Amino acid sequence: MEGTTQMRILVVNVNTTESMTAGIGEQARRVAAPGTEIVALTPRFGAESVEGNLESYLAAVAVMDRVLSYDQPYDAVIQAGYGEHGREGLQELLDVPVVDITEAAASTAMYLGHRYSVVTTLDRAVPLIEDRLLLAGLDRRCASVRSSGMAVLELESEPERAVDAIVAEAEAAVRDDHAEVIVLGCGGMAELEATVRERTGVPVVDGVAAAVTVAESLVRLGLSTSKVRTYAPARPKKMTGWPITR
Amino acid sequence: MEGTTQMRILVVNVNTTESMTAGIGEQARRVAAPGTEIVALTPRFGAESVEGNLESYLAAVAVMDRVLSYDQPYDAVIQAGYGEHGREGLQELLDVPVVDITEAAASTAMYLGHRYSVVTTLDRAVPLIEDRLLLAGLDRRCASVRSSGMAVLELESEPERAVDAIVAEAEAAVRDDHAEVIVLGCGGMAELEATVRERTGVPVVDGVAAAVTVAESLVRLGLSTSKVRTYAPARPKKMTGWPITR
Amino acid sequence: MEGTTQMRILVVNVNTTESMTAGIGEQARRVAAPGTEIVALTPRFGAESVEGNLESYLAAVAVMDRVLSYDQPYDAVIQAGYGEHGREGLQELLDVPVVDITEAAASTAMYLGHRYSVVTTLDRAVPLIEDRLLLAGLDRRCASVRSSGMAVLELESEPERAVDAIVAEAEAAVRDDHAEVIVLGCGGMAELEATVRERTGVPVVDGVAAAVTVAESLVRLGLSTSKVRTYAPARPKKMTGWPITR
Amino acid sequence: MEGTTQMRILVVNVNTTESMTAGIGEQARRVAAPGTEIVALTPRFGAESVEGNLESYLAAVAVMDRVLSYDQPYDAVIQAGYGEHGREGLQELLDVPVVDITEAAASTAMYLGHRYSVVTTLDRAVPLIEDRLLLAGLDRRCASVRSSGMAVLELESEPERAVDAIVAEAEAAVRDDHAEVIVLGCGGMAELEATVRERTGVPVVDGVAAAVTVAESLVRLGLSTSKVRTYAPARPKKMTGWPITR
Amino acid sequence: MEGTTQMRILVVNVNTTESMTAGIGEQARRVAAPGTEIVALTPRFGAESVEGNLESYLAAVAVMDRVLSYDQPYDAVIQAGYGEHGREGLQELLDVPVVDITEAAASTAMYLGHRYSVVTTLDRAVPLIEDRLLLAGLDRRCASVRSSGMAVLELESEPERAVDAIVAEAEAAVRDDHAEVIVLGCGGMAELEATVRERTGVPVVDGVAAAVTVAESLVRLGLSTSKVRTYAPARPKKMTGWPITR
Amino acid sequence: MEGTTQMRILVVNVNTTESMTAGIGEQARRVAAPGTEIVALTPRFGAESVEGNLESYLAAVAVMDRVLSYDQPYDAVIQAGYGEHGREGLQELLDVPVVDITEAAASTAMYLGHRYSVVTTLDRAVPLIEDRLLLAGLDRRCASVRSSGMAVLELESEPERAVDAIVAEAEAAVRDDHAEVIVLGCGGMAELEATVRERTGVPVVDGVAAAVTVAESLVRLGLSTSKVRTYAPARPKKMTGWPITR
Repeated sequence: MEGTTQMRILVVNVNTTESMTAGIGEQARRVAAPGTEIVALTPRFGAESVEGNLESYLAAVAVMDRVLSYDQPYDAVIQAGYGEHGREGLQELLDVPVVDITEAAASTAMYLGHRYSVVTTLDRAVPLIEDRLLLAGLDRRCASVRSSGMAVLELESEPERAVDAIVAEAEAAVRDDHAEVIVLGCGGMAELEATVRERTGVPVVDGVAAAVTVAESLVRLGLSTSKVRTYAPARPKKMTGWPITR
Repeated sequence: MEGTTQMRILVVNVNTTESMTAGIGEQARRVAAPGTEIVALTPRFGAESVEGNLESYLAAVAVMDRVLSYDQPYDAVIQAGYGEHGREGLQELLDVPVVDITEAAASTAMYLGHRYSVVTTLDRAVPLIEDRLLLAGLDRRCASVRSSGMAVLELESEPERAVDAIVAEAEAAVRDDHAEVIVLGCGGMAELEATVRERTGVPVVDGVAAAVTVAESLVRLGLSTSKVRTYAPARPKKMTGWPITR
Repeated sequence: MEGTTQMRILVVNVNTTESMTAGIGEQARRVAAPGTEIVALTPRFGAESVEGNLESYLAAVAVMDRVLSYDQPYDAVIQAGYGEHGREGLQELLDVPVVDITEAAASTAMYLGHRYSVVTTLDRAVPLIEDRLLLAGLDRRCASVRSSGMAVLELESEPERAVDAIVAEAEAAVRDDHAEVIVLGCGGMAELEATVRERTGVPVVDGVAAAVTVAESLVRLGLSTSKVRTYAPARPKKMTGWPITR
Repeated sequence: MEGTTQMRILVVNVNTTESMTAGIGEQARRVAAPGTEIVALTPRFGAESVEGNLESYLAAVAVMDRVLSYDQPYDAVIQAGYGEHGREGLQELLDVPVVDITEAAASTAMYLGHRYSVVTTLDRAVPLIEDRLLLAGLDRRCASVRSSGMAVLELESEPERAVDAIVAEAEAAVRDDHAEVIVLGCGGMAELEATVRERTGVPVVDGVAAAVTVAESLVRLGLSTSKVRTYAPARPKKMTGWPITR
Repeated sequence: MEGTTQMRILVVNVNTTESMTAGIGEQARRVAAPGTEIVALTPRFGAESVEGNLESYLAAVAVMDRVLSYDQPYDAVIQAGYGEHGREGLQELLDVPVVDITEAAASTAMYLGHRYSVVTTLDRAVPLIEDRLLLAGLDRRCASVRSSGMAVLELESEPERAVDAIVAEAEAAVRDDHAEVIVLGCGGMAELEATVRERTGVPVVDGVAAAVTVAESLVRLGLSTSKVRTYAPARPKKMTGWPITR
Repeated sequence: MEGTTQMRILVVNVNTTESMTAGIGEQARRVAAPGTEIVALTPRFGAESVEGNLESYLAAVAVMDRVLSYDQPYDAVIQAGYGEHGREGLQELLDVPVVDITEAAASTAMYLGHRYSVVTTLDRAVPLIEDRLLLAGLDRRCASVRSSGMAVLELESEPERAVDAIVAEAEAAVRDDHAEVIVLGCGGMAELEATVRERTGVPVVDGVAAAVTVAESLVRLGLSTSKVRTYAPARPKKMTGWPITR
């Protein structure tokens, strides 16, 4: 048996809203093991909330940019946007493990039931999440991706309405789609976990929490991204205007 | 029967190398119908060649940025990087049709044989292309994605070695993977089409050429991206640092 | 830039109803480029409307038979029946490109939205269309195939009822199946395109129109069916009673 | 326990070669139960051997035509061409069960091992077989479809060379593709079953034999084609030139 | 033509309820050919009805145990539980063919319609059946697996309520899921076949009946489980406590 | 941040070989967090090594039996056999999380590279592993499952030959199958992790280690198996001879 592993994990918000970064950081800390330091980072450019493709691609670049400008050592990086692009770029850029909350949540949910459903924010986010799960090879046991109709920032500003909407969709997923587990499909839904669990009676997985445990596990196991092919470091070449911020 | 449709198509390179943009523009013009004006654009930032995830995500943003700064009217946009990210962001941003050369080439190849193979540049590009074809739902009839081992810029600097390498992989695809059609998996391979065809005896599809015909067809049919869900315009919100260049 | 390509395209109806052939020919001409001559052909035997497997296999043979008896030069052939068998036989028989409207429509729709739905005639046609999309590798992004309940010949005889029925299914596809694009699943629906578009607010793709643009594109690109394996010319052998008509 | 069921099964060759029809009939009789009368039929038009799409579509129609002109009662129909089109047309046309040897063989093989491979005649037949297995939903446990390089009529004229070629491919399938069962992919390979079995040490399934047992089973179970949707009888309509022969 | 094949088939119940074994035996005999002797066996341990994973794994072992203690010769074994584990163990253990009623029913249904649905007992059995069909590679043409809400033992004790419940689900499957064939998803539903057929108008397949015909067919064809890889006999090794009963 | 979670995890061997149980226990302890007590258990009946279906089904029951007879409290259970049956039975039986090393390893590997390969013991184990990955929905990014040709017990008795054989297959997987991560496909391979890593240059995932981190994560997150459908507790009923051992 070993002593507690000391590590620092960067948890990077995909949007520029500091209060959301703070919330994500708190959720991460609630779950983190002793010895794990959580550093929550906010991208320096991009959208105040990420709810579509344009914003997602911008976030992919902004997250890489933000991590590059963090000059202390760290042991892992979590990208804390549900259904967003970018994890592959981080894996190429970095030597430390990279965990995307979309995959951590789905992967964790798959240990808990035959099928899982994701409940997310706006309907327009649903196809983005479906595509990320498809790419990750985690789609087959996904019963459905449903939307609560709440915008990302409304999760913070109208938490009661958010809970009701999310619970309604979760119940529909269990009743109609045969989901046995619910995944909260937005980095900003973290605090709703217990309430949704109580009201639906099924396990509820929050991506930030799941990602923290996955990142800690990878670090403890001494595992990181393979560099033999897809995520080998970028070949040296002329780059213009990169990183975006100095 | 109608008169020739007048239209302008933007063909956007994914890398910052002007000579490659020029070559892409020439290939596009060779194929374009009378009445079609081709405007070839170079992103203002990014990598001199795009061969990996980081560079691809950067290109996705740089291409959107470049198109936004083009202030003349246009009827369609072609993203001219094989296997790169970004088409979905353009579809959200724009009202005109958007065509990615990866999909135009695969889709066109599927009219010509039971299975097609893609021959691309470096081996590291292969998984990126596989993923884009998977997302596009065009993967099932893809026999294989093979790499010639040539870097993107070497296509320009060492054309003879490039042709030999590409032909060797094309022949292997036909012989071993049962491909009946070859797709050239790089925007910079356009000029090699005829030679590869002669030496392999199978149809060879270049993505830029195919994309021009697809874009022209969509314009002529009066069809453009649906705005009802996935590609609806981004919701109004606070954006920081976007567009990247003024 | 080149001058307008001169070409002749045969557009072959799958049923024996001359008025439908005429309508298909008109739709094709509305879309065709200057320089494209459309020749609409009617099979010499078969069913007055093709709505099932027996009729479809008969049509496959009748279309090949009709093309073989056309003794002027031509540059491409379009098979204008939605969801019908036969395209593979034509590809084997001919050296010029062959385009099936089922595939042209689906393929075109896939440039316009995350998912597309097909609205066809009778319910019994639905599985035939599903099977052809599966074979073509274009099924994964098909949200659904719905039927309007109208028989093929009723499209001509009761156009108003047809439009209402088709629009109702299209709306259901968008609302319930998350389709973002509608494909008109019958060669005889061509004239309904604009009305369905107006009433549903989504792009609507007609197969005959799409196929004309695809065929023109293939001819302009100098591409045709690969002859190395699946569609190699039939080996010389004793044939009895073929072609069916002299 | 019941007495032996009396039944008559039509076994229809897909090609016009009488000696092959005779061989197919003999194979069927070797397997048939007491009480089963086998009637082997030859289509009245078509190709002397079916090895490609054109020939296959012609066979689909010729087989339907031949069955329609058989005016004695019968209890089931077997279409005895491996990988050919047409079974769906027969199912629509007839009230009695219809069995295609491609599916009977694959289905039977799936009871005998984790994966099966098909060994067929010419390489050009491979994609046709793959497509029929895909349509039938029997493809996933198919390890491979291999070709012996023998033409259909060479099976009769050069049986020793045929056996050697088939055994070589069967051995490769077991060794390289992990097949545990071999399916003979041609109606004319029936007599080679025992030899291939001896030389490879794995179960070998002949389609004609398998189809006879399946057809007998369906008749004994009182099961036949569902008429509620896909295979409902064709709607009454004007047909021209059908049946092809009187 | 041959004389009737003499054979003995063991039909092994998965649960310990003798009256159900008797019913299964009767159903098997109703279908069996002259010359086929049916021996119905009851496992010596396990659950009185198998409706979940624990019970299913126990049944897998109990069925193997029961067959090992049957000391007369036999020609084939049928495992008569719908959606249960174990067939692979029997295939490894035995030299004679092994048929699982789940697969026999699905496979038989696939000859009769474009899609089939299974109607089973409790809702909790649905995912078990879905998984077995997935493993068997027979899932793609399965429109749905529905539950009647009846427990296995209630089929015997409340047959009228059972029929009504099963018919209701079968009708929903045809109407809403586009099933064209119904499979009875429980070994104990055999006697309901005719009634369900009458009331729904579609073919209904009982697994025990289908499995008897499949087993007889394999024996007549001289086919049995391949021993080259997956189902090779277990390597000699130290076993503790096996067989479970002497 | 919280204090170290105290928990007890049962790690159950699938075979009856005590020295292997000890090795599994040591590997688990090497990875376990402070506060995690590992209890390694050996089934009371079954095979000395599990390498096939019969042995696997027996192990499924023996593992459930062993856990039921452990009468101290525990927080999670790990089934430590690669590619074996049984996890679903444990999930039904228990309220605490259950982790199968097959899934933990595959799932972990998927964070580290585009594709992973499994290297296991005997060739006959390969299809069992393929089937478990298919059921788990973790198969799509599995490049291949390869066998080293070593029997389970030979890993202990001939460790040098084992390492060489495993490394050879791992290298082939990276070179030929484009795997970027290797999963050790046997509970008994744990100690070889570092060596295989050094010699291949890719990340190597051991299932026991991965499973410990997953189990700890689930306990810390307060997540366990959903009881709403598939894994609801078994209904009360008459059981005979269960548990097997008192």
